[in-house]
Amino acid sequence: MRNRGVLVVVSGFSGAGKGTLMNELLSKYDNYALSVSATTRSPRPGEVDGREYFFKTKEEFQSMIDNNEFLEYACYVENNYGTPKDYVEKQLEEGKDVLLEIEIQGALKVKQMTDDAVLIFILPPSAEELKRRLTGRGTETPDVIDARLKRANEEAEGIEKYDYVLVNDNLDESAAALHKLIQSSHCSTFRNIELINNIREGVKRFSEGE
Amino acid sequence: MRNRGVLVVVSGFSGAGKGTLMNELLSKYDNYALSVSATTRSPRPGEVDGREYFFKTKEEFQSMIDNNEFLEYACYVENNYGTPKDYVEKQLEEGKDVLLEIEIQGALKVKQMTDDAVLIFILPPSAEELKRRLTGRGTETPDVIDARLKRANEEAEGIEKYDYVLVNDNLDESAAALHKLIQSSHCSTFRNIELINNIREGVKRFSEGE
Repeated sequence: MRNRGVLVVVSGFSGAGKGTLMNELLSKYDNYALSVSATTRSPRPGEVDGREYFFKTKEEFQSMIDNNEFLEYACYVENNYGTPKDYVEKQLEEGKDVLLEIEIQGALKVKQMTDDAVLIFILPPSAEELKRRLTGRGTETPDVIDARLKRANEEAEGIEKYDYVLVNDNLDESAAALHKLIQSSHCSTFRNIELINNIREGVKRFSEGE
Repeated sequence: MRNRGVLVVVSGFSGAGKGTLMNELLSKYDNYALSVSATTRSPRPGEVDGREYFFKTKEEFQSMIDNNEFLEYACYVENNYGTPKDYVEKQLEEGKDVLLEIEIQGALKVKQMTDDAVLIFILPPSAEELKRRLTGRGTETPDVIDARLKRANEEAEGIEKYDYVLVNDNLDESAAALHKLIQSSHCSTFRNIELINNIREGVKRFSEGE
């Protein structure tokens, strides 16, 4: 029943462990591709165009906006970031399930743009555990932790707009659960119209005595 | 993330192997319960009230209809069949995923009655394979096979109203895929509102400096 890939939009609070989960999926299973964003910021040492990002000038980025080439994009004071449609589409056509890790505003734009995205919000096991993870890193100032909690508080408002939530407690188990969830999405009726029509036509022929 | 069970409505053409799949789930995993129907037909030798069916008189059945005690029911010339709500509800509350194998009209009634049912249509790998399975049993007359194909042709019209389709090719693989699909349904956002609210309230408290 594998055909076109599923576009998987993953969001979650800072400290929920999204990035680690994505990497686990990519390293354990071979059916995933990571969406590559376009950005106007300069490459950092070691970053490769088309791998970490598609690096664009402000003019190129604007032209992509004008030509409706983004699934979603956001323009900040310093730099712009966006998800190019054609890269995602190419991976989906090849049957890859595309992982797109973005924040909630972007996720909701993608949902508007395309019916067949699956939106998943990664949750910590509890708010206490989220706070522990944010403070426990020991590398951030109280101001930064405070800003993240405030941001988490804003993002928490939109969780109901996602299709699924997944608690990230144990990395192995959560990655396996996420993988199952994504694979199960392939069974959605609207993703199998061709198969259904084929069987329907055959059954019709046989029932008419052919 | 386990709490309330999921009501799983399973349909499929005669010969799609639904019954075998259900039995496989029940024997392999311990989180499933099979819905038990009420019927006005008489018990056959070996059948136990409350196991194969809840055996009811016509009057009792009518009284259950009048009291809105069925998730769905159908009255035929000979006998009536229905799915009692209270039995299903009790299993769901205990955290069991309840398997309900019914035909399409009943399935669509259940979907109307309750938001949280998951409707799954079991497909044969192809129409040719369905025909092979129906004729290959060697125990049915051409008339019976013909009637089943005509019935399949009618049922095929409604497949799009199901949430998922699942191809039953290899029993082991199909049972595993069905299990994953049902377990993944537990991650649906609307089934996790309590968890989401708990985390949201905690994050709010922390972001306000508590």
